[in-house]
Amino acid sequence: MELTRVDLTRFLPVARGDEPADLVLRNGRVVNVFTGEIIDADVAIAGDTIVGVGPGYEAGEEMDLGGRYVCPGLIDAHVHIESSMCTPPQFARAVLPRGTTTAVTDPHEIANVTGADGVRYMLAVSQGLPLTVIVNLPSCVPATHMGTAGASLEAEDLLALADLPRVVGLAEFMNVPGAVLGLPGALEKLAAFQGRVIDGHAPGISGTWLQAYVGAGPGSDHESTTAEEMLEKLRLGMVVFIREATAAQNLRALVPAVTLQNSRRCAFCTDDRHPADLLDEGHLDYLIRLAVAEGLDPVTAIQMATLNAAEWFRLRDRGAIAPGKRADLVVFSNLKDFRAEMVFAGGALAARDGVAVGDWPVPDVDDAHVRDTVHVEWERLSFDIPAQGERVRAIGVVPDQVITDAAVVPAKVVDGLAVADPERDLLKIAVIERHRGTGNVGLGFVRGLGLKRGAIAGSVGHDAHNLTVAGCDDASMMTAARAVGDLGGGLVAAAGEQVLGSVPLPIAGLMSDRPVETVRQQMDELVGVARTLGSPLHDPFMTLGFLALEVIPALKLTDQGLVDVEKFDFVPLFVA
Amino acid sequence: MELTRVDLTRFLPVARGDEPADLVLRNGRVVNVFTGEIIDADVAIAGDTIVGVGPGYEAGEEMDLGGRYVCPGLIDAHVHIESSMCTPPQFARAVLPRGTTTAVTDPHEIANVTGADGVRYMLAVSQGLPLTVIVNLPSCVPATHMGTAGASLEAEDLLALADLPRVVGLAEFMNVPGAVLGLPGALEKLAAFQGRVIDGHAPGISGTWLQAYVGAGPGSDHESTTAEEMLEKLRLGMVVFIREATAAQNLRALVPAVTLQNSRRCAFCTDDRHPADLLDEGHLDYLIRLAVAEGLDPVTAIQMATLNAAEWFRLRDRGAIAPGKRADLVVFSNLKDFRAEMVFAGGALAARDGVAVGDWPVPDVDDAHVRDTVHVEWERLSFDIPAQGERVRAIGVVPDQVITDAAVVPAKVVDGLAVADPERDLLKIAVIERHRGTGNVGLGFVRGLGLKRGAIAGSVGHDAHNLTVAGCDDASMMTAARAVGDLGGGLVAAAGEQVLGSVPLPIAGLMSDRPVETVRQQMDELVGVARTLGSPLHDPFMTLGFLALEVIPALKLTDQGLVDVEKFDFVPLFVA
Repeated sequence: MELTRVDLTRFLPVARGDEPADLVLRNGRVVNVFTGEIIDADVAIAGDTIVGVGPGYEAGEEMDLGGRYVCPGLIDAHVHIESSMCTPPQFARAVLPRGTTTAVTDPHEIANVTGADGVRYMLAVSQGLPLTVIVNLPSCVPATHMGTAGASLEAEDLLALADLPRVVGLAEFMNVPGAVLGLPGALEKLAAFQGRVIDGHAPGISGTWLQAYVGAGPGSDHESTTAEEMLEKLRLGMVVFIREATAAQNLRALVPAVTLQNSRRCAFCTDDRHPADLLDEGHLDYLIRLAVAEGLDPVTAIQMATLNAAEWFRLRDRGAIAPGKRADLVVFSNLKDFRAEMVFAGGALAARDGVAVGDWPVPDVDDAHVRDTVHVEWERLSFDIPAQGERVRAIGVVPDQVITDAAVVPAKVVDGLAVADPERDLLKIAVIERHRGTGNVGLGFVRGLGLKRGAIAGSVGHDAHNLTVAGCDDASMMTAARAVGDLGGGLVAAAGEQVLGSVPLPIAGLMSDRPVETVRQQMDELVGVARTLGSPLHDPFMTLGFLALEVIPALKLTDQGLVDVEKFDFVPLFVA
Repeated sequence: MELTRVDLTRFLPVARGDEPADLVLRNGRVVNVFTGEIIDADVAIAGDTIVGVGPGYEAGEEMDLGGRYVCPGLIDAHVHIESSMCTPPQFARAVLPRGTTTAVTDPHEIANVTGADGVRYMLAVSQGLPLTVIVNLPSCVPATHMGTAGASLEAEDLLALADLPRVVGLAEFMNVPGAVLGLPGALEKLAAFQGRVIDGHAPGISGTWLQAYVGAGPGSDHESTTAEEMLEKLRLGMVVFIREATAAQNLRALVPAVTLQNSRRCAFCTDDRHPADLLDEGHLDYLIRLAVAEGLDPVTAIQMATLNAAEWFRLRDRGAIAPGKRADLVVFSNLKDFRAEMVFAGGALAARDGVAVGDWPVPDVDDAHVRDTVHVEWERLSFDIPAQGERVRAIGVVPDQVITDAAVVPAKVVDGLAVADPERDLLKIAVIERHRGTGNVGLGFVRGLGLKRGAIAGSVGHDAHNLTVAGCDDASMMTAARAVGDLGGGLVAAAGEQVLGSVPLPIAGLMSDRPVETVRQQMDELVGVARTLGSPLHDPFMTLGFLALEVIPALKLTDQGLVDVEKFDFVPLFVA
């Protein structure tokens, strides 16, 4: 894929030195990702393209780098932009000043809500940004058939999107059993994308199953958690993306296994990073700093964050500083403490000292299809759980993890109904189908959220993103859930009939339309409210959002009921 | 490009270990080109595909490698098969037993004779061979307009071939001025192949011209002769093919500049290797041995000869030993003295101890279009040179080089005609247009061939491949030239009216239809005859074949006349 096409009528005379360039960066120390060298050189730019690296170029505008380093713009190999809770233009403003100029995003979250419309929205709203947003199509929507998502994407739906500009292939192919056992739906998708990029997703898979998975088509993986796992995948030819997300932090475990010989098959990705992490730690710049602190050669780290990702995704117009490549550049001063001082995107200065500069386009996109996505018949909604026994299964929160425990505990029954018992930290939880107004409500109990009163609710509930609410009493739960509906999506804390705080997420119920700084402040305030209600968790809304994810053990709740993930089937709430 | 498509219905159960493989190679030391490691493992194969690498596989047939090494089949990044003077099936029998399982060939020579028909012939006649023949389309046919080739291939002609199976892109883009100066014909071809593989050809080009050339599209180069030249190209992002041909031997000069960091951008190619070299030295196996002897790490050398070439040519089905890859494998015993003991091609044993084994398909191809390519109106042909002065320009042979000297010497004039003067080693040379019967004959004089009597002639005359003949008298020249015509192409030595020896090259006047061993023997005998006629040269026919190449300095002769290559124009034979 070559998104930046060189205009040779302009390029050639400038490259030959017969006409002046638009811009020359003088006296840079250029990180050459092809050879692993650092070479003193000028970089000449015409339009959005690098025309020459070395001496012999003049330009209308010159900038003296005074011996600072220049490297290619960074490439995030796998990110769900929705996890930043910001739209692509706002995400771009958060990450580009950090040095990221290309993000390969998997719009898996919005696709679970609005299907192909969501994918098209993410493409449209990122059109023309200084950050190049590449879309890798979500391969597994819905995640399973045990939850009700807002859409499904079959092979033919994906193929209809495959040739759109900036679409590169198929993202994290999570359906490992489907690929390895050769189930029809999975094989159809893999066959449809043969010859294109297919990213894998094989956490903990090894041995003969991994061999079958690799041969079936997926060629990369970003789920390694140990060096051993990473090496097995590299040896089978997978390109490994080393991930450092908000929840899944794998970099420290994996970087020691990177060698000069295998590093060409390694890249970096952020997967899911929340607003506070983007602002406090950073984006790929943070991964590079962390990797170098862990002992990785800085030039190798930069290769992984640039050329290696470009090669895997066949982005032949970028990932290096060379004639004909897109002029995405990062200027920085310290190899051991990588911090972007200037970021050029398509030849234009787009950020300086961590702040976006210049006029960024404001995409004029009709987003009606991705707003107003909460559809619940509130009049029919009830959280009543008629008692059918004396003991219930309860989901157990594991702090800072997406896995849960499963326990069986005595029910508290009042007037024939099983109810929450905050004194035992046993809250009621409901997952309300919110896409199609089916009236589906999954009901259950959860321990570990810690609320002493009130309720919290949100429209972010991986992966189907139904409306999830947990609380100490049905009235608070109803207030919180309805407030999410009134916002058209968002996160809410409530007590009794009072809404105590909220973060509006009007785009698909997943993303704010405000800057990342605003979202972060709103989140901080909302988590503060949850804390006053008694929750000790770092982020109870994130925890709540993963209690519906029926592909991660052990016990989860979807709109269709309680799921024993290890059995991959529903189980009754009451235990005899 | 994935030529070998995995049949997942068979692959998956075998890869999982649920069904037996067809063949398991036990106890191999597998060269892992992804990680640079050597790992003890079994290799399981089903059909033409590797299904698993490691323990856990059973098969109907097992073979114990007893700790010998296994590496992927070797890939020649750039070769003109015609230079072997053998057809692709015979070339395959010569090189596959050496470990080469894929050759990226540029049918530049046959295309200069028969155009697209020649390209299609090379594809057809290589269909189904154990050696996978990939065709990269000849980008510069004819080489210039100062000679008359048998065909021309413009952008639209090349595009008509581009989507044929096994066609990968555009080969050595020799028209450097066209690319750098943005001349229309060159830009049209480069634009037509944007997004596909475009190999470069930039001998000695550097600085701003090289920057312009790289940005114009060509992404590889195999013409570096010094480490400095190679490094400049690598730094600009070119993939460098290190060449060791019969004439151009660059490996020793370049290998010292290969590092662990830049080796990923290096591959090997043979370009033009003659029968004797293929038989006495070898093919890519020879390059690996030579590189290792020069100090290159053996695993790095193998990576260059496999994965690196596969990556550049986007041959995603090969170049490594991993599940889903084509089962092209080489078994060998000594890392420091690489000699193929067994070669598997598409899962089948195809050679053992240097000898082809098994039933190789015999392509049934209608080759009428590429035979009978010598069209000369003999009755009109005359080698008379009416004297127009007392001094003539003479081409000067430089032994073992393709360049020539240019000199001005006194003419020998008899009866008003300038004639050869063997006593001064001044032979007459004629280049006879042989494609279209135009009657064009270029006439001149050459020094350094050394014949004392008789004449030598051939239908191999780079790049237009006209009939070239040099000799001590017109009668011998006519006998030799006519004998080439009678053969329908070939090489001939003659004296007076007697043909003393010949090598028939009936395919386009370039290739024999006999095995490489036969061709080599015929060549040895013919060169022996030339020696009895007085030529001291290592191979006077090869020298003769390059005297018509009007893009290599200094003085050359085409069917249209004498060319001063540095002026890039014709010059008169006689000097005032």
